[in-house]
Amino acid sequence: MISVVILGAGNVATHFFKGFEKAKDISVIQWYNRSLAAIKPYANAVEITDDISALKAADVYILAVSDDVIAEVSHQIPFDDKLVVHTSGSVSVYDLDKKHKRGVLYPLQSLSKNSDVDFANVPICIETIDKKSYPVLKHLARSLGSPTKRINSDQRRVLHLAAVFVNNFTNQLYRIGHEITEHEGAEFDLLKPLILETAKKVQEMSPYKAQTGPAKRNDKKTIKKHLKLLENEQHKAIYKLLTESIIQTHGRKKL
Amino acid sequence: MISVVILGAGNVATHFFKGFEKAKDISVIQWYNRSLAAIKPYANAVEITDDISALKAADVYILAVSDDVIAEVSHQIPFDDKLVVHTSGSVSVYDLDKKHKRGVLYPLQSLSKNSDVDFANVPICIETIDKKSYPVLKHLARSLGSPTKRINSDQRRVLHLAAVFVNNFTNQLYRIGHEITEHEGAEFDLLKPLILETAKKVQEMSPYKAQTGPAKRNDKKTIKKHLKLLENEQHKAIYKLLTESIIQTHGRKKL
Ligand SMILES: NC(=O)c1ccc[n+]([C@@H]2O[C@H](COP(=O)([O-])OP(=O)(O)OC[C@H]3O[C@@H](n4cnc5c(N)ncnc54)[C@H](OP(=O)(O)O)[C@@H]3O)[C@@H](O)[C@H]2O)c1
Ligand SMILES: NC(=O)c1ccc[n+]([C@@H]2O[C@H](COP(=O)([O-])OP(=O)(O)OC[C@H]3O[C@@H](n4cnc5c(N)ncnc54)[C@H](OP(=O)(O)O)[C@@H]3O)[C@@H](O)[C@H]2O)c1
Repeated sequence: MISVVILGAGNVATHFFKGFEKAKDISVIQWYNRSLAAIKPYANAVEITDDISALKAADVYILAVSDDVIAEVSHQIPFDDKLVVHTSGSVSVYDLDKKHKRGVLYPLQSLSKNSDVDFANVPICIETIDKKSYPVLKHLARSLGSPTKRINSDQRRVLHLAAVFVNNFTNQLYRIGHEITEHEGAEFDLLKPLILETAKKVQEMSPYKAQTGPAKRNDKKTIKKHLKLLENEQHKAIYKLLTESIIQTHGRKKL
Repeated sequence: MISVVILGAGNVATHFFKGFEKAKDISVIQWYNRSLAAIKPYANAVEITDDISALKAADVYILAVSDDVIAEVSHQIPFDDKLVVHTSGSVSVYDLDKKHKRGVLYPLQSLSKNSDVDFANVPICIETIDKKSYPVLKHLARSLGSPTKRINSDQRRVLHLAAVFVNNFTNQLYRIGHEITEHEGAEFDLLKPLILETAKKVQEMSPYKAQTGPAKRNDKKTIKKHLKLLENEQHKAIYKLLTESIIQTHGRKKL
C-alpha cells in the first residue's frame, strides 16, 4: 500500500484523486488545496485541508499545482526527505525544494476537470533523481492504468514542446478551418470526419508516410489558387510556411 | 436503378466502385481506365475498357481522374447531354465539357486505395449546374452510405482549402512532433493518445473552446523556453506564427 497526499485541486489533481480512489493498493490519505471550495465535495471520501503545515506523513506527495508555484509550495511541505513530485511538462525537477526526494509524474494528455478520462490513454512520463524512487512512481502510474515511460529532463522538455505542436497548434489549424469555412457559409462539421481520420492515420503510420495534398505534390497551381482565396494575412503566412515545411520534408522536386 | 460508368482507377474510383457494388439500386455498367492493369482484377465483376470511345450509355459518368486531366477526359466522353461529374475539391464544375450536364461529387475525406473506407465517415459534397441532376447525385452518394451536403463552388473551394489546413498541415505538425522528439531520443508514440484526443475533442466542442496551452495563456516564460529549445529555424518560425495566431484568436491580454 502506497500512501499519497495530493496538493492542488485542478484538472490533474482531480483526475489523479479519482483514479487513485479506484486503485486497490494506493491510499490517498489527505488532499490539500489553498482554498477548500474545490475539494469540499470530496470531504466524505478523504481528509481535506487548506493548511499546508497540517500535512500528514505519507509515502508520496503529488504537487499538481500551477507551474509557477511548484517551487514555493514544495518548500512549504513540512517534511524532509519525503518523495515529492510535480506533474508539469516544462518545470525542472530541480525546482522542487532540495530537502525532498524529487521526481516528476508528467501525464502526456490534455486533462480537463469536466471531462472523463481513461488513463489507458494517458501515458505518464516518469522522472526521478534517485533510482529508488522510480519503482514507487511507476507503481503509482500503473495503478491508474496508464502506460508509463521513464524519461530524462531533456526528453520531458521536448515532449512538452512537441505536445504544443500536436495539440495546441493543431487545434489552432482546426480553428482556422472553422473560420474560413464559416466565412463562406460552409459547414465546419463537414471537416470533422477528416480531422479524426488524420489523427487516426498516424496511430499506425508515420506522419511522413501519411502526408498527401498539394504541398506534398508541389502542385503550384492549387497552392496559388489557395493563397489567392485566403483573405487573412496571417492565414496566408501560415499556409506559406507550412507548405514550405512540407516541401522541405518531402524533397524539393520540381521547385 | 441508376446506371453508372466510372472513369479512372485511383483511390477515389476504386472506393466508389466497391461502394456501388454493395448498393442495391446502383449498377456500375462499365469501368474505364487509360491503362487496364489497375482494373483487370475487377473484370469478373464489371465490364472494363481502356477505349474511351467505346463507353456505353449510362445515367451518370463519374470522372475520378487527376485534377489536371478532368477537362480533357470529359471532352473525350462520346456522348452529349449526359450527367458527367468529377470528384475534385478544387477544379471548377465548368472545367467539364459544356456538352454535358455537369456536376461534382466531392468526397471530403482522405481516401487511399490500400485502406478500407467507411462511407459513413466520408461526407460527399454535391454541386450541380441544373437542378434536376441534384437528386440523382444525392441518391448516388446516399447509396454509398455517405452523409451529403449540397454546396456551391465557393463553398467547395473553401472546404478544400480548409481540408489542407486540418489534414495536410496538421499532419505536418505531427511530423514536426516526430522530428523533435526522436532528435532527443524520446518516443513519438507517447504523443499518439494526445493526437487522437485533440481530434476527438473538436467533434463535440468548437476549436475555440478546446484551446489550451502556453500560447492561449500567453505564458511568455514557457514560450521563450520553447523557442530556445527549437534548433530548426523553420520549426521556430512555425512556433512563433502559430503562437501569434492563437494569441490573436484569444485576445491580446497581457501583451
Ligand atoms: N491540465 C493538463 O492537461 C495538464 C497536463 C499535463 C501536465 N499538467 C501540469 O499539471 C499541473 C497542474 O495543472 P492543472 O491543469 O491541474 O492546473 P489548474 O487546473 O489550473 O489547477 C492549478 C491548481 O494550483 C493551485 N494553485 C495555484 N496557485 C497556487 C498557490 N499560489 N498556492 C497553492 N496552490 C496554488 C490552484 O488552487 P485553486 O484551486 O485554489 O485555484 C489549483 O488547485 C501543472 O504543472 C501543469 O503544467 C497539466
Ligand atoms: N484521394 C483522395 O483522398 C481524394 C479526396 C477527394 C477528392 N479527390 C479527387 O478525386 C480525383 C481522383 O483522385 P485520386 O486520389 O483517386 O487520384 P489517383 O489515385 O492519382 O488516380 C488518378 C487516376 O487518373 C487517371 N489519369 C491520370 N492521367 C490521366 C490521363 N491523362 N488520362 C486518363 N486518365 C488519367 C489515372 O490513370 P492510371 O491508373 O492509368 O494512372 C488514375 O486512374 C481527383 O480529382 C482528386 O482531386 C481525391
